[in-house]
Amino acid sequence: MITTDILIIGAGPTGLFTVFEAGLLKLKCHLIDSLPQPGGQCSEIYPKKPIYDIPAYPEILAGDLTDKLMEQCKQFEPGFTLGERADTIEKQEDGTFIVTTNKGTKHKAPVVAIAGGLGSFEPRKPLIDNITDYEDKGVEYMIKEPEMYRNKRVVIAGGGDSALDWSIFLADVASEVTLIHRRNEFRGHLDSVEKVQELKSAGKINLITPAEVIGLEGEGQLESVTIKREAKVFKKECDHFVPLFGLSPKLGPIADWGLEIEKNAIKVNNALDYQTNIPGIFAIGDVNTYPGKLKLILCGFHEATLMCQAAYQIINPGKRYVLKYTTVAGVDGFDGTRKEAPKAVVKAIE
Amino acid sequence: MITTDILIIGAGPTGLFTVFEAGLLKLKCHLIDSLPQPGGQCSEIYPKKPIYDIPAYPEILAGDLTDKLMEQCKQFEPGFTLGERADTIEKQEDGTFIVTTNKGTKHKAPVVAIAGGLGSFEPRKPLIDNITDYEDKGVEYMIKEPEMYRNKRVVIAGGGDSALDWSIFLADVASEVTLIHRRNEFRGHLDSVEKVQELKSAGKINLITPAEVIGLEGEGQLESVTIKREAKVFKKECDHFVPLFGLSPKLGPIADWGLEIEKNAIKVNNALDYQTNIPGIFAIGDVNTYPGKLKLILCGFHEATLMCQAAYQIINPGKRYVLKYTTVAGVDGFDGTRKEAPKAVVKAIE
Repeated sequence: MITTDILIIGAGPTGLFTVFEAGLLKLKCHLIDSLPQPGGQCSEIYPKKPIYDIPAYPEILAGDLTDKLMEQCKQFEPGFTLGERADTIEKQEDGTFIVTTNKGTKHKAPVVAIAGGLGSFEPRKPLIDNITDYEDKGVEYMIKEPEMYRNKRVVIAGGGDSALDWSIFLADVASEVTLIHRRNEFRGHLDSVEKVQELKSAGKINLITPAEVIGLEGEGQLESVTIKREAKVFKKECDHFVPLFGLSPKLGPIADWGLEIEKNAIKVNNALDYQTNIPGIFAIGDVNTYPGKLKLILCGFHEATLMCQAAYQIINPGKRYVLKYTTVAGVDGFDGTRKEAPKAVVKAIE
Repeated sequence: MITTDILIIGAGPTGLFTVFEAGLLKLKCHLIDSLPQPGGQCSEIYPKKPIYDIPAYPEILAGDLTDKLMEQCKQFEPGFTLGERADTIEKQEDGTFIVTTNKGTKHKAPVVAIAGGLGSFEPRKPLIDNITDYEDKGVEYMIKEPEMYRNKRVVIAGGGDSALDWSIFLADVASEVTLIHRRNEFRGHLDSVEKVQELKSAGKINLITPAEVIGLEGEGQLESVTIKREAKVFKKECDHFVPLFGLSPKLGPIADWGLEIEKNAIKVNNALDYQTNIPGIFAIGDVNTYPGKLKLILCGFHEATLMCQAAYQIINPGKRYVLKYTTVAGVDGFDGTRKEAPKAVVKAIE
């Protein structure tokens, strides 16, 4: 059982900044995310896209935003349960919550902050009859641990940045990379398309277009895929088939937690602390809704900050918190680090 | 008469970010600030201090924060009335407001956003009987235009960073700089103290300590100051006397605008749009109050963003605004610039 002060569901920008704000209040955080790395959409969907409306960043790549937020909260030593989806929540008699993931990992905390963005990202699956039989037996919809593919024969399907970028990455890891797309044209960053072209010309990536995978075979474990290329149908032996057809967000199991939901988002009390209808459960960032709500990252930062104050009151009942400015008080990390403004000297001039 | 869409009172971080958010909605902004430069406290009081709780900045100097916000909003061409304090407001029959400064500059806008921080910064004045007689006649409490002091004899009083930094700066501009402090010890950044020591040793700054200015003389214009150094009293001829004893914020004339005030801050509707009790006047950032309010820069950013949506409705009644993400739609500046994410290419690989 993982125990913490604030259990954060969703490790996107809002969830990560919550760790920092909670840390200033000496509260520890643990984050659960269905994606294999922190950053939410920013890391998974558009890491190379510039964002222009993060305050004081005239331009920042979404991936860099994640890195900066990770650096900022690192000193408060957040815990992570990644690649798992928060599935169930139970309220204990002592008022704490137990949240269990789809893989059975249990987390206990007095405060739960849902920072789930648009929901957990579920992969779009190709329409192949028996595909579910091979899930985790050779078929993966997301690449979580690239090392898993070392010296394996991998077939990737898809025509966008994910398919291009992972083909490039695995060309150096896997023993064989085959990229299949139903069109001849790929849609992605120019440099990614050019790099795949280069690797294909060098014989490091097999390219089969226009084509699609229409069947999967193997005894218990994937052994080959059936490919249809125009009128021709043939088999190709392989250890892995990774269809990268995009992710679509779903509110998912959270929708059944007894929270008030409106237009696929969780209603919160924006006049006070972004608490939901269940005391002790908050919703911050894109996952919540209230009059005038804007689904912007900078709004999630504010909501996280006010929410942490309310969490402090739940965890330290009756204790008064006096806001300290970081400029004046500095920041004491849980890892023993201390950040502080250079002290003024008092010195005579002779 | 200066006319604009949103008249912002206060050019600190919240006011500057308002320009950006308003710009995304095609609304123009003009800012009034009693300080001689944008940035509010961040520029005037602690430009060299690091702030640790700006989201995605593990550390940023307050002065650099101002620079980044100025850079971010520049494309939306804000207007500035600096070194003037917003004194009076009148509501016109057409629903617009006219705001007049202490120097008589008039501004007209359908929406007023008070982003006044802790108030307008008023200098702490030394207790010299006739000092008000010489204000703007040789006595200044803040250095607004350094060029004014070129080839003049300047007496600066004070023992902190402002006194040190301006003495250093003016050593190259004025014909003579005299720094007076009632103690021998100065309190400031080590490098500032050391630099003054160096300039004093090189004969570029006269230092008189422990001493204070106890009298001012001159016919219509300042001609000399009377200095008391321990038991000795003497006169020193000069063109300017600049006591830099710090600034203290005062809500000031805004307190008389008919706004609901609580604990020296303006009450707003935080459940919706940060509007005050007077429709069309909003209050954002440290100047406002509501249940759970935190006087943090990042909260001002959020409040500014939601406020701009309400301003849009006032200025474009009945028109529906659909939120566009900068990552997707890019940013079109009023200066003709366009920022946009690099487009994906659609390209065949052969």
